Amino acid sequence: MSPMNFTHILTQAVDELSESESYKGLMHQHKDGEPLPSAKILQDIIELSRAILFPGYFGNSTVNSRTINYHIGVNIEKLFGLLTKQIMAGLCFGASEECTEDTESKQAKAADLAAKLIGLFPQLRRTLATDVEAAYNGDPAAQSFGEVICCYPAIKAITNYRIAHELLKLEVPLIPRIITEMAHSETGIDIHPGAQIGSYFTIDHGTGVVIGATSIIGNNVKLYQGVTLGAKSFPLDNDGNPIKGIPRHPILEDDVIVYSNATILGRIIVGKGATVGGNIWVTEDVPPGARLVQTKAKK
Amino acid sequence: MSPMNFTHILTQAVDELSESESYKGLMHQHKDGEPLPSAKILQDIIELSRAILFPGYFGNSTVNSRTINYHIGVNIEKLFGLLTKQIMAGLCFGASEECTEDTESKQAKAADLAAKLIGLFPQLRRTLATDVEAAYNGDPAAQSFGEVICCYPAIKAITNYRIAHELLKLEVPLIPRIITEMAHSETGIDIHPGAQIGSYFTIDHGTGVVIGATSIIGNNVKLYQGVTLGAKSFPLDNDGNPIKGIPRHPILEDDVIVYSNATILGRIIVGKGATVGGNIWVTEDVPPGARLVQTKAKK
Amino acid sequence: MSPMNFTHILTQAVDELSESESYKGLMHQHKDGEPLPSAKILQDIIELSRAILFPGYFGNSTVNSRTINYHIGVNIEKLFGLLTKQIMAGLCFGASEECTEDTESKQAKAADLAAKLIGLFPQLRRTLATDVEAAYNGDPAAQSFGEVICCYPAIKAITNYRIAHELLKLEVPLIPRIITEMAHSETGIDIHPGAQIGSYFTIDHGTGVVIGATSIIGNNVKLYQGVTLGAKSFPLDNDGNPIKGIPRHPILEDDVIVYSNATILGRIIVGKGATVGGNIWVTEDVPPGARLVQTKAKK
Amino acid sequence: MSPMNFTHILTQAVDELSESESYKGLMHQHKDGEPLPSAKILQDIIELSRAILFPGYFGNSTVNSRTINYHIGVNIEKLFGLLTKQIMAGLCFGASEECTEDTESKQAKAADLAAKLIGLFPQLRRTLATDVEAAYNGDPAAQSFGEVICCYPAIKAITNYRIAHELLKLEVPLIPRIITEMAHSETGIDIHPGAQIGSYFTIDHGTGVVIGATSIIGNNVKLYQGVTLGAKSFPLDNDGNPIKGIPRHPILEDDVIVYSNATILGRIIVGKGATVGGNIWVTEDVPPGARLVQTKAKK
Amino acid sequence: MSPMNFTHILTQAVDELSESESYKGLMHQHKDGEPLPSAKILQDIIELSRAILFPGYFGNSTVNSRTINYHIGVNIEKLFGLLTKQIMAGLCFGASEECTEDTESKQAKAADLAAKLIGLFPQLRRTLATDVEAAYNGDPAAQSFGEVICCYPAIKAITNYRIAHELLKLEVPLIPRIITEMAHSETGIDIHPGAQIGSYFTIDHGTGVVIGATSIIGNNVKLYQGVTLGAKSFPLDNDGNPIKGIPRHPILEDDVIVYSNATILGRIIVGKGATVGGNIWVTEDVPPGARLVQTKAKK
Amino acid sequence: MSPMNFTHILTQAVDELSESESYKGLMHQHKDGEPLPSAKILQDIIELSRAILFPGYFGNSTVNSRTINYHIGVNIEKLFGLLTKQIMAGLCFGASEECTEDTESKQAKAADLAAKLIGLFPQLRRTLATDVEAAYNGDPAAQSFGEVICCYPAIKAITNYRIAHELLKLEVPLIPRIITEMAHSETGIDIHPGAQIGSYFTIDHGTGVVIGATSIIGNNVKLYQGVTLGAKSFPLDNDGNPIKGIPRHPILEDDVIVYSNATILGRIIVGKGATVGGNIWVTEDVPPGARLVQTKAKK
Repeated sequence: MSPMNFTHILTQAVDELSESESYKGLMHQHKDGEPLPSAKILQDIIELSRAILFPGYFGNSTVNSRTINYHIGVNIEKLFGLLTKQIMAGLCFGASEECTEDTESKQAKAADLAAKLIGLFPQLRRTLATDVEAAYNGDPAAQSFGEVICCYPAIKAITNYRIAHELLKLEVPLIPRIITEMAHSETGIDIHPGAQIGSYFTIDHGTGVVIGATSIIGNNVKLYQGVTLGAKSFPLDNDGNPIKGIPRHPILEDDVIVYSNATILGRIIVGKGATVGGNIWVTEDVPPGARLVQTKAKK
Repeated sequence: MSPMNFTHILTQAVDELSESESYKGLMHQHKDGEPLPSAKILQDIIELSRAILFPGYFGNSTVNSRTINYHIGVNIEKLFGLLTKQIMAGLCFGASEECTEDTESKQAKAADLAAKLIGLFPQLRRTLATDVEAAYNGDPAAQSFGEVICCYPAIKAITNYRIAHELLKLEVPLIPRIITEMAHSETGIDIHPGAQIGSYFTIDHGTGVVIGATSIIGNNVKLYQGVTLGAKSFPLDNDGNPIKGIPRHPILEDDVIVYSNATILGRIIVGKGATVGGNIWVTEDVPPGARLVQTKAKK
Repeated sequence: MSPMNFTHILTQAVDELSESESYKGLMHQHKDGEPLPSAKILQDIIELSRAILFPGYFGNSTVNSRTINYHIGVNIEKLFGLLTKQIMAGLCFGASEECTEDTESKQAKAADLAAKLIGLFPQLRRTLATDVEAAYNGDPAAQSFGEVICCYPAIKAITNYRIAHELLKLEVPLIPRIITEMAHSETGIDIHPGAQIGSYFTIDHGTGVVIGATSIIGNNVKLYQGVTLGAKSFPLDNDGNPIKGIPRHPILEDDVIVYSNATILGRIIVGKGATVGGNIWVTEDVPPGARLVQTKAKK
Repeated sequence: MSPMNFTHILTQAVDELSESESYKGLMHQHKDGEPLPSAKILQDIIELSRAILFPGYFGNSTVNSRTINYHIGVNIEKLFGLLTKQIMAGLCFGASEECTEDTESKQAKAADLAAKLIGLFPQLRRTLATDVEAAYNGDPAAQSFGEVICCYPAIKAITNYRIAHELLKLEVPLIPRIITEMAHSETGIDIHPGAQIGSYFTIDHGTGVVIGATSIIGNNVKLYQGVTLGAKSFPLDNDGNPIKGIPRHPILEDDVIVYSNATILGRIIVGKGATVGGNIWVTEDVPPGARLVQTKAKK
Repeated sequence: MSPMNFTHILTQAVDELSESESYKGLMHQHKDGEPLPSAKILQDIIELSRAILFPGYFGNSTVNSRTINYHIGVNIEKLFGLLTKQIMAGLCFGASEECTEDTESKQAKAADLAAKLIGLFPQLRRTLATDVEAAYNGDPAAQSFGEVICCYPAIKAITNYRIAHELLKLEVPLIPRIITEMAHSETGIDIHPGAQIGSYFTIDHGTGVVIGATSIIGNNVKLYQGVTLGAKSFPLDNDGNPIKGIPRHPILEDDVIVYSNATILGRIIVGKGATVGGNIWVTEDVPPGARLVQTKAKK
Repeated sequence: MSPMNFTHILTQAVDELSESESYKGLMHQHKDGEPLPSAKILQDIIELSRAILFPGYFGNSTVNSRTINYHIGVNIEKLFGLLTKQIMAGLCFGASEECTEDTESKQAKAADLAAKLIGLFPQLRRTLATDVEAAYNGDPAAQSFGEVICCYPAIKAITNYRIAHELLKLEVPLIPRIITEMAHSETGIDIHPGAQIGSYFTIDHGTGVVIGATSIIGNNVKLYQGVTLGAKSFPLDNDGNPIKGIPRHPILEDDVIVYSNATILGRIIVGKGATVGGNIWVTEDVPPGARLVQTKAKK
């Protein structure tokens, strides 16, 4: 094939791919002056947040009790700036069509929401401290809190989730989901930002864990890798599309343990203190304190 | 131990590791002037492709209907250049021993294949649009097409797969597999580029999904996380090595749903409209419309 | 909300987050002059190690039999420098409280350990060569050793594990675990550095595989994705905390195959040549040569 | 000195350097949401401008007559975005105290000015083409236009100057000066953005050339390295400060040549076609066509 | 020429260039664990210093009177860490042969010197404030202090010089000279760190200015571009080598102005308030208040 | 001005700037597969060359007599690869129109020339050793060879020149000039690659030095800053364009010293051992041993 033909093929591809019909529904039109949601900057936001919440473990700088004030101060200021822009990107993104607010008022709203989130960081740290303790106590292989904070994927995923959950409660569109998907990609743990999760929460190993959008999890719950808290089925509207926002994922009460690869589906209740064995499929309520296991394998 | 001993240990390690016997089968010898397959450049290729297929969602630049032509044009040209080099790297890599073609003719062939792939992009976009729609319709938690395109790991994995599959059909060695493994690492979804997959395909959550090399999947199929479409066993040749290229993975007909952590093995047929429940192991044909579920767990 | 209020919220967050009570147990205090454990540098260490062990496949530079000596030499020297610093970071980290050694002697110890690890690289390469061969022979879709080395997540995870395991045997704290978690994040395969694994080991696809800290795996063992080698339960001490260091994970003898999503729990023995089917939960010894499969699904 | 003392010294330095008295006049207070003037982004702006004005010579991408439209389009769009922000930074910076405009209207003004500058690019290219021709014709060592565009510091400095001069005419504060100082640092040629310079202008070698703010240079003028067009002295106001904005630099009419290290000072006129020899100091008018040389050196 | 010949040429070059005789005097042998002097890190040190001395103008982050404390705190801590390492690199470098101190004590000494330098920063800022004022007052084209701080090469060169001069007084080898050479490359102004310079010092335009190692400059002195304060000749020792450390550069008393391209050579005194015209060569004392100009050019 | 108008202005600028008439002579058309001359890669080439020629001083890695062989080996191999591509870029660039050679043969020629240049490196190092010695002996402020190699701009400029000169002798187009211009920008020293310069050459301070294309400089010559070795005038051809390639710059015989800001013009001879004083303009032969100084300044 001669170079001429390359030109022809490439030019034609450009033309076809630039026709408005061809990218309908698949293109995002930005307005000038509006920031773009950026995976890279959201990654920076998560790294700053980790550096603030767990000083000295993340953020690649030395810190001690004399200088922590400087570091927290600079990091909070940076975080405020970056968050404001990304929240605004979410507001613009979510409201693309009917959005009548002007840029200035969206900017003010974004700054307000960013400040509110940061105001919640002390509380977030208190909750995450219980998660670290739960992970340490729940794993005989854990050597120290430090190892848990540095290495355990659960802590990374739960940190992202707890930040994303607060952003969702503040009604920031899109950004919460990107933040939990970042943890999903990093750890294989997929927690929807809409889920409600109590304190002392831990996930062992974690890869393959799925926690659906309307799940409710009590305190002191432990999951193993591969556990699904999913929807069994969902009602469709008259057009055959799923109706959004209906509670459809399980409720796990306090002190529940779910072993690896178990699948719990539907708005059922797993009662306080129950244990769900590995590799089983649960679609009905589990009484408090029950122990559910798989039928014996054939040899 | 004194510094002298360090020197001795290190020098000896260098010598041992440089002996030709020690790296036999584990070293890749490049010829001068031949490009190296590069994970980093293939990552750039995927990002360019995403920016072309879903304008404004990827690629970190603003785009609108007036300027899309410029952006697609520049991106296609860059993509053509990078792809040509990486395809050539694949050709050189795959053919290391018996390769008698000269550099110039391999280069021409690589450019030809790159142009052919780019010529398929309009069709790829049309198919991916059906995958986006399927993901949106299949998830009550999805807020918008934009959220699906930005955040859903399935869209990332399927995009990589569809590109890799076309490269495989063009008989480009190595590169297709690296591209699907990149998505595997990013999303936990492992689709072999050899699999054949219809339109309106979606995977919910996705981590742990494995789709083998000879799988055939119809239109409008939905998988959940942890699903395996694998080989049951494979015939060995006289030397005890597996015989390559024999169909050994399942066929899923149109409208099939497979729930989380189900394992479907062997060249069996899951009939049109069948539903396979979670956490079960299927090694025999499933009739059209059937609903397969796990035996009840013991309480 | 006026800017004044932002200032107030942010300043208050800084103050609260800088109070020593609030970060108790969640901050790492570094001493001046001690290196920080760095995920980024450990990533460089792994990339250098891969470039040394599989010349020409990793490290982004051409290499041939004439020049391999130069490349190995430079890479070993760089690796020694980086490893020494990170091992020292581990020593400082692990010993934070009762550490009485001075910096100089920790530095000498770190250099000694780094040299010892590098001295083991020729042996590591010999073992990894058997893993590559096992992966190639075990997968009909594999085209060449090169494809296996470049693309297969198992090889990446096993390489990290084998390096981390040697570091653990040298009693380096923290660093081994960070190295295996890096592979966990990249591949979804979670092998604890404490596990003991023989030669000719392979994992197909891999996502979701968990191999616990006291697992013992013989030669020529093959696992599929989603397999757990876990602990069933663990004894608590008088304070209700798990007792550390007790053998609690399975022993897999030579020639065992475990299919996808199987869960094997507790210090049980899976005998030589046994096959464990997919999606089942095993908590008792499996005799040599046995074939264990799931009870049939209900249609 | 013990670590305690370091802490004391450092803490005290922090306190002293944070006192408002100590940084009076030396700190720039930004308002939230206002961009910072950024040397790095202005560098990107210059590189984009060079890539637009001299396609294929700068910007590190291939371009040909078929694809130039795409490249110019993308580059102009990027340039518009970056310029708007930096011009706004200049507007904020210049007006720090009495600035009563709100952010939105400054943003609109900045976008307007950026668009106006870009609208002048076709004219700028026409003028720069004459400068390239003058450099080529004026240097027997020049091999091609391409060499002149790629390598000659004069072209870089004059390009920056011509852009900065237009920005100054648009009354953008600060940014023009940063742009010419960037060229000054890169080439040693210091042209104040306020100078007025005709077409077919060239500077041979260039290092050490200084062209003051109120200089006027006709067409077809050539300078050599080390030439100063400076102010002789300047009137002071009643406070002893220099009065700003008075014409105080030379006027060079068409076809003037000034040899290396000549210093021409004050609002004098060097007449059409005059030649000023090297290493001399000129403070009086030079008649048209005159040839001025240094008094003979003593042997 | 065949590839074989390339191999031969390259291999031979490697061998010749690795012979110890061939790099005698041209190689720097590092000891393990000793930091290397690094132009890149010294650049970071200068940028941090500028960000500390002129808050908000350098360092690419917003700062205001509420948050300046955090920023100065973090920057000082970073600066202390980087400076300690580079000073230690200088100590190791300077003392290569006869150095008997161990690493630990050199490290302590380096930290001590770094802290001492930082302790001088408040004083350095006070002096630099006078230089900024002098530059502003001396240039009718200057619009604001901000423009002077951001753009004027003199401020950059003088800042580097004043830091380097203090390091030289602390007897740190090599590093001071690298720091002034960085400014030389950036601005064309070459001030030896050994020179002594009073307050209210400014250099207009600056390119080509040379201020020798033993120069002494009073307060309120102004130089123009191209001015040399050099040595006339220097006495040789018995081996014909220049004797180091003898005063051999000019003394400029308070209130001196030297116009462009003037050359002042030897340990002469230019008296208080004297003016030296451009393009002249001065090798004898100039009386206080004198005005020296070039002989008239021939027309 | 409304956003609509921005669009109009920008679109019109794109159209005008994309018209072929508007970029005539100012665009470089690349052919596919041909490398671009790249300032960035040429910078890497220079850094590699410095690391090879002065081991341990450049290149940011530790090196000692045991490991130098590895470092030189890796660096030479990298240099060969990068040089081959850039030389080829030069060959393509220089021959744009009438070039009939195919890509493959240009590639072979480029590799041949790269190997030839590298073969000259041992000789280049020997010559540069004399330059280092000359700089050290000529400056009483120099503390050590190490300081000279690290810090002195003359060594950087002369290294670039000596490499560029050899490339010019090998008839590589464009690249030599880019290399010397890089040094020009870094140091303010502008040596044309065509100049012929003997050993023991040094330039003190250096900024503003210009050495023209046909200059010939003997051994043991020393220049100060601001010295010009230029052309006086040059004959024009019938079209009024300068005739290329005629000797027009000075010859400096052995042992000549030229002081700062002296300008020596035309194909004149400055005889062995002559001294030319500062700030003077020389256009006639200078006898061997002569001392030329400026006429006395008027007080």
